[in-house]
Amino acid sequence: MELNNIIDDDIETLDDLQNGYRIIQRRDGFRFGIDAVLLADFAKKGKGRAIDLCTGTGIIPILLAAKSEMKLIDAVEIQPEMAEMAQRSVEYNALRGRIHIRCADLKEAPEIYGKSCFETVTVNPPYMKTGSGIVNADDMKLISRHEVKCTLDDVVRVSSDLLKTNGSMFMVHRPSRLAEIFVVMHKYRIEPKIIRMVAPKMGKEPNMVLICGIKNAKSDIKFLPQLYVYNENSEYSKEIDEIYGR
Amino acid sequence: MELNNIIDDDIETLDDLQNGYRIIQRRDGFRFGIDAVLLADFAKKGKGRAIDLCTGTGIIPILLAAKSEMKLIDAVEIQPEMAEMAQRSVEYNALRGRIHIRCADLKEAPEIYGKSCFETVTVNPPYMKTGSGIVNADDMKLISRHEVKCTLDDVVRVSSDLLKTNGSMFMVHRPSRLAEIFVVMHKYRIEPKIIRMVAPKMGKEPNMVLICGIKNAKSDIKFLPQLYVYNENSEYSKEIDEIYGR
Repeated sequence: MELNNIIDDDIETLDDLQNGYRIIQRRDGFRFGIDAVLLADFAKKGKGRAIDLCTGTGIIPILLAAKSEMKLIDAVEIQPEMAEMAQRSVEYNALRGRIHIRCADLKEAPEIYGKSCFETVTVNPPYMKTGSGIVNADDMKLISRHEVKCTLDDVVRVSSDLLKTNGSMFMVHRPSRLAEIFVVMHKYRIEPKIIRMVAPKMGKEPNMVLICGIKNAKSDIKFLPQLYVYNENSEYSKEIDEIYGR
Repeated sequence: MELNNIIDDDIETLDDLQNGYRIIQRRDGFRFGIDAVLLADFAKKGKGRAIDLCTGTGIIPILLAAKSEMKLIDAVEIQPEMAEMAQRSVEYNALRGRIHIRCADLKEAPEIYGKSCFETVTVNPPYMKTGSGIVNADDMKLISRHEVKCTLDDVVRVSSDLLKTNGSMFMVHRPSRLAEIFVVMHKYRIEPKIIRMVAPKMGKEPNMVLICGIKNAKSDIKFLPQLYVYNENSEYSKEIDEIYGR
């Protein structure tokens, strides 16, 4: 497929993921960051049928297509423009056989796909609670960042409904919300089992947390060694270079 | 008071805390470790009337007497031999005016001291769940390490009962139990507000967690930079040296 058919150059870019795939993103929209890259790497050992919630541009399933052996990844996005853009990325990368994008509200996902039929759920949800000052609830960036269309409770409840017993939920979020996250996971019987805190560099506060929960598991967390994005020379750390495949 | 009146040299030691105080410990019993030192340092900004639960040898109140400006620290210990030993340490250090040891079950503390009358609770509770294989429930070391006499639920419920609104609970525990801890704290309306993970050294998994919760606060955690006990040369890290006052 030719480039000029696949993107609208005025408002979009086609970015090389350095793994054989490319992704279409809005110039002025929500663009993927290191959190998506870390989540895909963290979830790459996920097994069986997988679904990505809040997929946005489709970045997580496309990174998983490169990193994992997952054969079929469903992906749900509520915003029609984003879902359509993700679909174009899937087609550009010839991933129609592995990634199925659907424009839907994730709250309807258990009805659409069926309950307890996934081994793996991934999600990079909006991090921020919706304050009282939300002016435009249709703003695409806002929907990606704030809990306008779905709350943490929705995300975890739906993940639990979709997962089989012993299925895994992989999520990236903010450390500031970890208490709420654990309480909501407990409520929906997804037990946090593997946690990795991520900090910009040594001596700095962690600003991301990677969470793997298992449905109907016993309570017992393995904390991995903390991950640092930069080393003391302000270059990417060795582990980040490995994750990026450099 | 003379040394030969205060300890039974055959079974006890009198250890210098390097802060002007000493502590009596059983040669064959539970002896304080770095977790107690880190908890006391973490809690030193605690204000107002304070109580230490599961006080054991009294190490936390004695360290707090040196590090903090707390004027009155109550301390509860369920084992009569430990409480008596803690009392001797208090007397040896001439701290009778600041530290009040009481031999009691912490579950009775709200009745003994009254509800909602403390600004600060500290606790270094038993870390391990009681398995089915407990042979001797009177073993002193076992009681210090396993939840034989009190569970995590008891510790947090009692802390909440003792604390005023906006009072602080300081606890050290194992990272493996952090999900349970957050769930139980939420249940008793103590919101985790400051968390510090502690790892032996860079690249290793954290093996302790310091938790400060505030009664009736809003959910929002500040994670401090991770603390490392040793540096890359396997010497105590600079921060640990500072905490130990070296």
